Amino acid sequence: MEDIEKILSFMVEVEKLKNVHRKTKPVGLDRFENSAEHSWHVCLSALMLKDQADEDIDILRVLKMLLIHDLGEIDAGDTIIYASETIELKNKEADGVKRILGFLPDHMQDQFMQLWFEFESGETADSRFAKAIDRIPPLFHNIHGDGHSWKAFNVSQEKVLSVNQRIELGSKKLWKVIKAKLSKAADDGLLK
Amino acid sequence: MEDIEKILSFMVEVEKLKNVHRKTKPVGLDRFENSAEHSWHVCLSALMLKDQADEDIDILRVLKMLLIHDLGEIDAGDTIIYASETIELKNKEADGVKRILGFLPDHMQDQFMQLWFEFESGETADSRFAKAIDRIPPLFHNIHGDGHSWKAFNVSQEKVLSVNQRIELGSKKLWKVIKAKLSKAADDGLLK
Repeated sequence: MEDIEKILSFMVEVEKLKNVHRKTKPVGLDRFENSAEHSWHVCLSALMLKDQADEDIDILRVLKMLLIHDLGEIDAGDTIIYASETIELKNKEADGVKRILGFLPDHMQDQFMQLWFEFESGETADSRFAKAIDRIPPLFHNIHGDGHSWKAFNVSQEKVLSVNQRIELGSKKLWKVIKAKLSKAADDGLLK
Repeated sequence: MEDIEKILSFMVEVEKLKNVHRKTKPVGLDRFENSAEHSWHVCLSALMLKDQADEDIDILRVLKMLLIHDLGEIDAGDTIIYASETIELKNKEADGVKRILGFLPDHMQDQFMQLWFEFESGETADSRFAKAIDRIPPLFHNIHGDGHSWKAFNVSQEKVLSVNQRIELGSKKLWKVIKAKLSKAADDGLLK
């Protein structure tokens, strides 16, 4: 099959990400978010926040990571960040990404698999920033949505702060602002 | 307000794109697509198809355009491509984009407004390619979904071919493959 046909079949396969449901609801909407619209949201957010990164980042690499970061959920499903990340689950996601990238021409697969692992590891400037951005929208969903997923999963303020402190690894300024909003949410009774 | 606060308020405002419904259903799903998940899909598609562009393109600029191309629909709503594009509607979209970009710091607004106009005009290599990619997913939704929006809006094969021929302006190879798929869809009775 030619490259174009392979890439078009990949485009059809990834439609399935529109049917993976996350644990928070978009601001103003009474339904759970799906991982495809979430992926758009974090890409646009990363683009607009790129100058807030503490380190030099390559925004194109960050966008590539964020465009593919959730593809593994098509096979593995979405898990709330406050649940323990097991090795089994991470392996299932990696296998899922590999299967889906397998629709692409051979010569294109490796670079995106490597980018996915880089994002997961969070050990480079680009992936630290991408992971920081990925954490922000669910916090806003709760702050503007009566703390719905915090309450549903009985997540404590301490846990929210400790898990999301990774935002600081991408941008200290951003974490400072977000942390203040989380304190206010706790004062307002959204978070215990 | 500092830049970060402004950009975070922009992030909350653009959530509304997740509630703008398009006229086609994602492959395999019995619901209409929203413009946020569509925006992710075309970004990922553009990234994977970039080597199929006929002209030299800057993929980062293409992604920026596609990330923001539908923001005007938050105020103006989505219109099917086969409807006439009126000047009134385009002005309403432009006003909508301007309003939403207005949440950003002043120094960031112009570059994105210019990119939006560049996309709309389709007169540069980057925008020709971005517009070509934007046309593909709704065709697949129909091809893999019993021609649902073609039938609902009584769109003829001639109209589908003439409106989507703009794909050729971004990539002749891509249009050749897509055109063959549209012929097959017509042979299969999905398109009259």
